[in-house]
Amino acid sequence: MTEKLSEETRGTVLKPLFDSGWEMVEGRDAIKKTFVFADFVEAFGWMTQVAIWAEKWNHHPEWDNVYKTVNVTLTTHDVGGLSALDAKMARKMDSLAERAED
Amino acid sequence: MTEKLSEETRGTVLKPLFDSGWEMVEGRDAIKKTFVFADFVEAFGWMTQVAIWAEKWNHHPEWDNVYKTVNVTLTTHDVGGLSALDAKMARKMDSLAERAED
Repeated sequence: MTEKLSEETRGTVLKPLFDSGWEMVEGRDAIKKTFVFADFVEAFGWMTQVAIWAEKWNHHPEWDNVYKTVNVTLTTHDVGGLSALDAKMARKMDSLAERAED
Repeated sequence: MTEKLSEETRGTVLKPLFDSGWEMVEGRDAIKKTFVFADFVEAFGWMTQVAIWAEKWNHHPEWDNVYKTVNVTLTTHDVGGLSALDAKMARKMDSLAERAED
């Protein structure tokens, strides 16, 4: 059962994400990050990996892509704000992006 | 060599696209369309097909995706406006989306 992050756990869960470049979206309980890759093939390749995890976890990002840049916003529509699923997806995105840089 | 659509050819090239749901973007020499699919798998599957053509033609869309919806904007940055490549890509997107509906 997915629940909105509680005030108690919020800091602990979000702090490492803020440290890796995630930010709060103004006016929404959501986080965002811009990923920049070497080119379109790297960018869309990363999106494809993320897409499979998103479908597997039934948790889909809001994202846009222009050539090598991907802007991502994560929130959990079902709970009207951030949940543990968003943190899990953010970590997966970071981890897949690190691999793309190798 | 890609060139900006001339005033003479513009109407002929763009008319069929407007008929299939493409619109001019306000304030830009660009066209846009919203594609809605059955679900995320259909939407991202279509994006993946488009991505391969985009890379093959070296002509990449600006696009965003939220679950089953994809918003696309096409323009040719090199010429500062619409070129024949945008029309070609728009037709390819329409044709791939029709197949997704089968």
